[in-house]
Amino acid sequence: MRDFVYESPTRIVFGRGKELQTGQEIAARGASKVLLHYGSGSIKAIGLYDRVVKSLKESGIPFVELGGAVPNPRLSLVHEAIDLCRREKVDFILAVGGGSVIDSAKAVAVGVPYDGDVWDFFDKGVVPKEALPVGAILTLSATGSETSPASVITKEEGWLKHALHSDLIRPAFAILNPELTTTLPPYQTAAGGVDIMAHLMERYFTNTTAVDLTNRLIEGTLQTVIKFLPIALKEPDNYDARAEIMWASTIAHNGILDTGRVGDWASHRIEHEIGAIYDVAHGAGLAVVFPAWMKFVYRHDIPRFVRFFHRVWGLEPDFWNPEATVLKGISVMEDYFRSLGMPVTLEELGVPDDRLEEMAEKTNWNGPVGQFVPITSDKALEILKLCK
Amino acid sequence: MRDFVYESPTRIVFGRGKELQTGQEIAARGASKVLLHYGSGSIKAIGLYDRVVKSLKESGIPFVELGGAVPNPRLSLVHEAIDLCRREKVDFILAVGGGSVIDSAKAVAVGVPYDGDVWDFFDKGVVPKEALPVGAILTLSATGSETSPASVITKEEGWLKHALHSDLIRPAFAILNPELTTTLPPYQTAAGGVDIMAHLMERYFTNTTAVDLTNRLIEGTLQTVIKFLPIALKEPDNYDARAEIMWASTIAHNGILDTGRVGDWASHRIEHEIGAIYDVAHGAGLAVVFPAWMKFVYRHDIPRFVRFFHRVWGLEPDFWNPEATVLKGISVMEDYFRSLGMPVTLEELGVPDDRLEEMAEKTNWNGPVGQFVPITSDKALEILKLCK
Repeated sequence: MRDFVYESPTRIVFGRGKELQTGQEIAARGASKVLLHYGSGSIKAIGLYDRVVKSLKESGIPFVELGGAVPNPRLSLVHEAIDLCRREKVDFILAVGGGSVIDSAKAVAVGVPYDGDVWDFFDKGVVPKEALPVGAILTLSATGSETSPASVITKEEGWLKHALHSDLIRPAFAILNPELTTTLPPYQTAAGGVDIMAHLMERYFTNTTAVDLTNRLIEGTLQTVIKFLPIALKEPDNYDARAEIMWASTIAHNGILDTGRVGDWASHRIEHEIGAIYDVAHGAGLAVVFPAWMKFVYRHDIPRFVRFFHRVWGLEPDFWNPEATVLKGISVMEDYFRSLGMPVTLEELGVPDDRLEEMAEKTNWNGPVGQFVPITSDKALEILKLCK
Repeated sequence: MRDFVYESPTRIVFGRGKELQTGQEIAARGASKVLLHYGSGSIKAIGLYDRVVKSLKESGIPFVELGGAVPNPRLSLVHEAIDLCRREKVDFILAVGGGSVIDSAKAVAVGVPYDGDVWDFFDKGVVPKEALPVGAILTLSATGSETSPASVITKEEGWLKHALHSDLIRPAFAILNPELTTTLPPYQTAAGGVDIMAHLMERYFTNTTAVDLTNRLIEGTLQTVIKFLPIALKEPDNYDARAEIMWASTIAHNGILDTGRVGDWASHRIEHEIGAIYDVAHGAGLAVVFPAWMKFVYRHDIPRFVRFFHRVWGLEPDFWNPEATVLKGISVMEDYFRSLGMPVTLEELGVPDDRLEEMAEKTNWNGPVGQFVPITSDKALEILKLCK
């Protein structure tokens, strides 16, 4: 086990109707003016917008609003929001939506007090020194952005999709109401679920030894997601299934399952380059990339993959032919993704194969990706070619 | 799953030699004078005292000190510490030791700014409004007090052992260096391990349904502790084993495994009454009480016990006779405790059987105990009689 620092101060308020506490959570932090940030109009369609506004008004908290955050959230909207916040002297950012909205809000939060271009934090490795506080009301179980220290933003010019990591952007509070996810289209539920699974698998495949506890915790969280995703798809109103998935999405990515170990993250980086160009759902992209990545790297540590498919997916190990267990496992996982309505090939994802070299090249903009097995651009291209 | 609020802001600094960061952690919080609180002289024997003092001096932090906290920490020492802090204008409490020292420090932290007797918080349900910040350097993996919102104090007059729960007393930081536990006597390592297991089992046995994720997380944490305790006893210097156990002790009790569910805690309350009179190691007392409690309550939910002994202890379920699986499991657990050098009867614990009625009566000072199966004084007496 490696040394680590772990700090996850986000206050979680979990349960039915908790969005009605938004105003008091913000008031408790002494904010004077809020940016209410959201995506498309779906929060209005489900009545969430009205309930949040009601809560803000009841607590006497003035706000301005800006919608329009899209999946793979854009830098241009972040710039617009920063200008608005400065003009209106906003001192608290409230994100209402999924990970894209929350990521966008986090970028705004570090951008407002910064003199330069906020993209510096994503592209140049400039370390933010301060940030406005962010609160999140989650409408999609997926990215874990509701407690994570990460934000991923896409710059339209050149379609660059880069991440910032800073403890400053962990939300001050996150309101998790599983009811808010019952009206999601099945594709979004499934893609969100695969994203959660990917966060867990990125952490699982590590070269760090002596991390039994976090291995077990990751396995248990994965087993839970695998069990409840099909239930949520079959019974969209099943509160318990939605609740298990929502809480798993947060635990998967709040840092506790990283403690003492180094995750891989090559699959995420490869998917980022698909998402930067083709605007696919992140989780759907991961359903395509992760099995291909596994096929490419599994020989690096066959026992780890056997244990994974045994403990998490319930496969009986073939002790004479462990490799067969791994290949069988990958195929079981692909079948599972398909059963959720997820693509497992680029073609099914709707991505043509004429820009694979470009995507592979871009994964390495800052050097090889992946800690478990370092992936150069050449190897990224091989993995992309396995995505079919 | 029930609604919940979860907030665990304690900063964890985990790894070798991290006690040398004590000064900078305290300085970062702007403290002007520290109470260095500890137990017996063991922190001096292992050189920890000197390293902590060095770190405080390097950061220019003045301190006063008070040792003498004992297992089942006493109210009289808390009173003494409160007087000292007021006299010396202390504004930060640093606990260096195991759970007893940390619990004592937490009581001091709420007592200093309070006009009445600090015991009001433990005995009369008075809710604390403010507290000095507490930092912890852990020397024993056991109670989880390093991040928990709980403190348990014993009042010598009447030997009353009561608990306070308040988010105000969660430590600001906890330094977890597994090396500090390598010199512990085996009995303390084992008793600490059983305490961790008991924290997990108290949470596991619940009537709350639809809590699959936390079930899995508890099971995985228990499996880890069960695996590494014998290794730590056989190889006291095994860093990895000590690290797994130390991190498990914190995760077991920081609240994340409570989310959405209601734990039982009858066994703890019964053990508290043994510990209040006989000053036994808390974990050793739990090794005696927990199997007896199981024998008394298992019929309330046999499938839960079967699943527990199957998933956590690896027993093959007897589907025709589930009860036999449970009884076999309890006996396997008792054998395991014995293998650690722990007692499983009151006699082995060194506790005579002439005050069982008194202890049983005291468990119910505030009504029946236990949420899984409510335990009245009569039932507590039956459980105590099963402790042999």
